[in-house]
Amino acid sequence: MTTNRQVLFVNRPRGWVSEDNFRMVESPLPSPTQGQVLVRNHWLSLDPYMRGRMDAGKSYAKGAELGEVMVGGTVGEVMESKSPKFKTGDMVAGALGWQEYGVSDASGLAKIDTSIGPASYYLGILGMPGVTAWMGLLEIAQPKEGETVVVSAASGAVGGAVGQIARIKGCRAVGIAGGKAKCDYVTGELGFDDCVDYKAGGLDADLQAAAPAGIDVCFENVGGEVFDAVLRQMNPFSRIALCGLVSQYNLTEPYAMKNLRSILVNRVRMQGFIVSDRLDLWPRARAELAGWLKAGKLKCRESVAHGLEQAPKAFIGMLKGENFGKQLVKLV
Amino acid sequence: MTTNRQVLFVNRPRGWVSEDNFRMVESPLPSPTQGQVLVRNHWLSLDPYMRGRMDAGKSYAKGAELGEVMVGGTVGEVMESKSPKFKTGDMVAGALGWQEYGVSDASGLAKIDTSIGPASYYLGILGMPGVTAWMGLLEIAQPKEGETVVVSAASGAVGGAVGQIARIKGCRAVGIAGGKAKCDYVTGELGFDDCVDYKAGGLDADLQAAAPAGIDVCFENVGGEVFDAVLRQMNPFSRIALCGLVSQYNLTEPYAMKNLRSILVNRVRMQGFIVSDRLDLWPRARAELAGWLKAGKLKCRESVAHGLEQAPKAFIGMLKGENFGKQLVKLV
Repeated sequence: MTTNRQVLFVNRPRGWVSEDNFRMVESPLPSPTQGQVLVRNHWLSLDPYMRGRMDAGKSYAKGAELGEVMVGGTVGEVMESKSPKFKTGDMVAGALGWQEYGVSDASGLAKIDTSIGPASYYLGILGMPGVTAWMGLLEIAQPKEGETVVVSAASGAVGGAVGQIARIKGCRAVGIAGGKAKCDYVTGELGFDDCVDYKAGGLDADLQAAAPAGIDVCFENVGGEVFDAVLRQMNPFSRIALCGLVSQYNLTEPYAMKNLRSILVNRVRMQGFIVSDRLDLWPRARAELAGWLKAGKLKCRESVAHGLEQAPKAFIGMLKGENFGKQLVKLV
Repeated sequence: MTTNRQVLFVNRPRGWVSEDNFRMVESPLPSPTQGQVLVRNHWLSLDPYMRGRMDAGKSYAKGAELGEVMVGGTVGEVMESKSPKFKTGDMVAGALGWQEYGVSDASGLAKIDTSIGPASYYLGILGMPGVTAWMGLLEIAQPKEGETVVVSAASGAVGGAVGQIARIKGCRAVGIAGGKAKCDYVTGELGFDDCVDYKAGGLDADLQAAAPAGIDVCFENVGGEVFDAVLRQMNPFSRIALCGLVSQYNLTEPYAMKNLRSILVNRVRMQGFIVSDRLDLWPRARAELAGWLKAGKLKCRESVAHGLEQAPKAFIGMLKGENFGKQLVKLV
């Protein structure tokens, strides 16, 4: 093998992402220099936050550069190491982007322990999405036993974990998801107490029925009209962990929120957060997640696309909510 | 004197408050029963939150009841006491509403010390507005030295105190107010570093010029378009103390916020608060405010209407932002 297939980010979307925003190329296999490692990517992670990186505007992470390999989390195998920290055959998590092979400084990689869970889990329940759920719920929103936790995009990688952790902590977990199949997955497979189908046409009433004592914690992944409806039913002294606004990322004009007054009237604490701001918490989060996983208290599903060429299509599908659980691309 | 003049709240406003929402009546002078106190009101407090109490909808405080005396804070003199806690001649703060005389259980009154400041100050800088400024800024928003604090309704009783306390704490204080006269008052008399006139037609650029390093703390009293503009310029890890939304109280449809994404991208913490939730903090707040007042570090202006019959008009004027500093009605 002497060539590396890559997906480049070639033009910025206006509104919805399209496959035209990307281009597949072949390039020579890179060689690691001193201190570097060559990794063969086994899995690509597709996550909503990556949409933000495609915009030119200010976001919390450095934007994706036009003409460069599309950014994203990866898990793979060390093929060649010029770093004392890794040896050939090690499985590592990193952010090598949409390509079959990548070279990285050792500092950008972390060895993973596949005895705890399969390698792909380090992009899901044991990786960024799982730690995001843990951190947003337990560190930011801090639910108390018996409280009602509502989470949007409940069938996604983050949302699915949030509700299950809420249940572990003795809370009532209410999901919001689009369509009956997803809601069935959320209540059936993931064990949430209830799930509201926001596409069913009775959001306010359905939310009230699912959270009859009001909402104490909102873990917000979606934004827009669904979030506006949640705001109406927040309890006094409730908390909102603002994790994402995926419904807004592909709009040229954002949805205009109407129920901000609820934050004043109910003395709500709303906090935006990014999981990478608190790297100090990752070991503890991951250890707890691994423990719950082993004890059978945490379940997760993966949606897998096969082959690098499927990455753009799978990414767009994920942004449209076509996936169940964690969306991955399998390369090997 | 055997009669008591009162202003009753007789019908709920739809949109803007009008004088028709009130009616002046005379009634017999009330008599205190055992444990009660008869107070002659010297000053009525007019505050934005009172608009919320006129709505039938859910708010943070019990609504004003139709046919009853209009609610509101008061300062007055004890005329007759059947409580061991007060004696004739004591000056007391309470919430006896829009009337010349009121009867109250001793628990609803607090003796005030007019050696620290004039009685009216206990409705302003030494009362609810001053403590609100102190609590929202120092407990909720927690500015650090050198940070930029932006406060809307900066020429009002709360806003004026916020900026001055921010300066005392070593912050850059930027006000937002409507019109040149108010901005001159805010920078001149109150000593803010800068003040943006939101009516001047260049809000975004003017705000950027006044807060060139971005906004670290927003003390929000107004909401609506002005708040939306502030959101655009919040710094990473900035804080918003959400104290009021006075621009919205008289609208039948709220302004629809567009820049919520800034809270996510910048990991902003936004918290609604009500000063009466933390009565434990009042003594410390009042002691600090009194100290700054004595040291000449805190200034305040009062806008005074004369006579009970002026209360409705002055209240409407205050909601429209016609006052400078604390709006009062002087009865005695």
